[in-house]
Amino acid sequence: TIGQNVGANDRIHAQYYVYKGKAALSACPVLPRFTKLNNGALKVDRPGAMMLTFSPAVAERKYDWARKQLFALSVTEVGSLITLGTKDSCEFFHDPSIRTSAAGQVRKSLSVKPLMDCSGYFISLNVVNNALQTNERLTVPITSAEFAVMCTTFRFALPILMGWDRYNNSQPLLLNVGVTTAKLD
Amino acid sequence: TIGQNVGANDRIHAQYYVYKGKAALSACPVLPRFTKLNNGALKVDRPGAMMLTFSPAVAERKYDWARKQLFALSVTEVGSLITLGTKDSCEFFHDPSIRTSAAGQVRKSLSVKPLMDCSGYFISLNVVNNALQTNERLTVPITSAEFAVMCTTFRFALPILMGWDRYNNSQPLLLNVGVTTAKLD
Amino acid sequence: TIGQNVGANDRIHAQYYVYKGKAALSACPVLPRFTKLNNGALKVDRPGAMMLTFSPAVAERKYDWARKQLFALSVTEVGSLITLGTKDSCEFFHDPSIRTSAAGQVRKSLSVKPLMDCSGYFISLNVVNNALQTNERLTVPITSAEFAVMCTTFRFALPILMGWDRYNNSQPLLLNVGVTTAKLD
Amino acid sequence: TIGQNVGANDRIHAQYYVYKGKAALSACPVLPRFTKLNNGALKVDRPGAMMLTFSPAVAERKYDWARKQLFALSVTEVGSLITLGTKDSCEFFHDPSIRTSAAGQVRKSLSVKPLMDCSGYFISLNVVNNALQTNERLTVPITSAEFAVMCTTFRFALPILMGWDRYNNSQPLLLNVGVTTAKLD
Repeated sequence: TIGQNVGANDRIHAQYYVYKGKAALSACPVLPRFTKLNNGALKVDRPGAMMLTFSPAVAERKYDWARKQLFALSVTEVGSLITLGTKDSCEFFHDPSIRTSAAGQVRKSLSVKPLMDCSGYFISLNVVNNALQTNERLTVPITSAEFAVMCTTFRFALPILMGWDRYNNSQPLLLNVGVTTAKLD
Repeated sequence: TIGQNVGANDRIHAQYYVYKGKAALSACPVLPRFTKLNNGALKVDRPGAMMLTFSPAVAERKYDWARKQLFALSVTEVGSLITLGTKDSCEFFHDPSIRTSAAGQVRKSLSVKPLMDCSGYFISLNVVNNALQTNERLTVPITSAEFAVMCTTFRFALPILMGWDRYNNSQPLLLNVGVTTAKLD
Repeated sequence: TIGQNVGANDRIHAQYYVYKGKAALSACPVLPRFTKLNNGALKVDRPGAMMLTFSPAVAERKYDWARKQLFALSVTEVGSLITLGTKDSCEFFHDPSIRTSAAGQVRKSLSVKPLMDCSGYFISLNVVNNALQTNERLTVPITSAEFAVMCTTFRFALPILMGWDRYNNSQPLLLNVGVTTAKLD
Repeated sequence: TIGQNVGANDRIHAQYYVYKGKAALSACPVLPRFTKLNNGALKVDRPGAMMLTFSPAVAERKYDWARKQLFALSVTEVGSLITLGTKDSCEFFHDPSIRTSAAGQVRKSLSVKPLMDCSGYFISLNVVNNALQTNERLTVPITSAEFAVMCTTFRFALPILMGWDRYNNSQPLLLNVGVTTAKLD
């Protein structure tokens, strides 16, 4: 899994869970990674993501989390989800090994498609692993209420994924006598 | 009432009150409950809820809070409310004793129905108690302005109910030299 | 002016200003007032408000702030504003001396009416003072961009006016062994 | 660049980047500047802005940040952007030397125009420098997903640009016995 350096990302475990007949879906923010500059400033080194986790059902209300599949929505993919109209669909493609020699071995695609009566969406994760010769598809139907929870909390999380929550209540920039401040434009 | 362990949940008393002719309605967030893991991380043990409290009027501008009835909206039920169109209605059913031997003795239902002219909603709580042989219904008409306050503040509260506010301004995850961080997908 | 006990409310001066030909309008949140209970908990004693201040123009880009008129939008009145459609209007009436012997002497009304082409609103404050035999009307035309700033920041401010921002990142409620926690419903 | 007094504004480096064929666009909040009053209160001296930075492409996925051009959206211009309908366009004009002797030498205009199929916008910055006799235009096509990220995070940032985030969780205003507090209206 991700964010494993010094365990800093593991301090909070807070997921939104949706349990359905054939699979469960959970979502949680993955925090951005920063570098500390020489002057002490924090710079976003890698933006965060919204991690979706799918687990197949093995019995009624039992899910096999060991067989979970992950899909990390980028900031812009989150933007795509939160503007989805009730009749719209979208699809994202990821290659976990992109720009390495293993590129193309595993292909993941996440699709979001409206239910027939537009009362929600099917969210499906398809993972094709050429090395293991496996092809898994996990689908979770989402009600509009569950989608509203996702959109609302994903909107809340977007600034966090981008590191913008750190501008909030940061040390106030004070006007100092004798110091010229550059103009905005 | 709820959240009574060590009184931690009782530090803030902040409700949104709506006083009407036959009953008063108030709303406030109930914080999630966490467990502390061995590594010091916080894990959501039970998500929070949006507590609705109904009290019957006993005189003009007087309400009998001793006869109050509670209904704790789950995160997904809040999601249902905040996407309600002006002509939509919804209804939720709770059994306070679900999965105990007393299951079915008390049945609560909350219904939200549009006013005739779509200028707001009737919010009704019906509590049927088979043990006490009582059947109470408390109804509060809500204007669209009051509903807008609820939706706006319920959207604000959703990440808090889920524990996601703790990701906000949490300790920054720093890139450390010599530490490999796993990839996102 | 308001919130003058121990000056606590005066620590932040941050207003949104709109300067127009005949008057200027500014808006800023007024924080709620709390009481401290014996157990140390904070309880909202009086909800906050969104203070609107109107000042008449006395010359080009000059406004007479000494002749300012105030109107404190309640939480529910803010709810009314933030759901206003582009063709909708609303009006609020306040009596600063309500429930005192001076009731009725001063009547304030704030009206929000769409511009002819629905590209914004006229916001007018009318103050009739029977004691001073004065009748003042201050009107500020607001563009849809300015109204969007107001709605967005008023939505941000609503939980603060209600004291709900204090639930945010409050001390986590921990599950303790051997302590029974009451159920939610 | 801006906010250079005591480097206080440089503690956080968190931008939203959009890389396209002919140019890259990035956005980040510029914090407001405060003055400290004699009583210790903080007063917004200059509101913040949303800084847009455009850089021309010099090769595939390479951008010349040395030739970047800046445009600082005011709070109200941000309000204009976040209410833009899918078929709407808007344009803003800035003169970096306004109210100085160099006024009119440099003219900047930012235009936002819908793509033909309304699936996003062209964002163009045009900078005409009469002194250098240059005329540069940098255009970045933006998808609706990217625009949604901008709108969501710009909405989040608006209260920060106005200094309103400092009302959040500020020291609670307590009701004190024997202290009269003025009324709201």
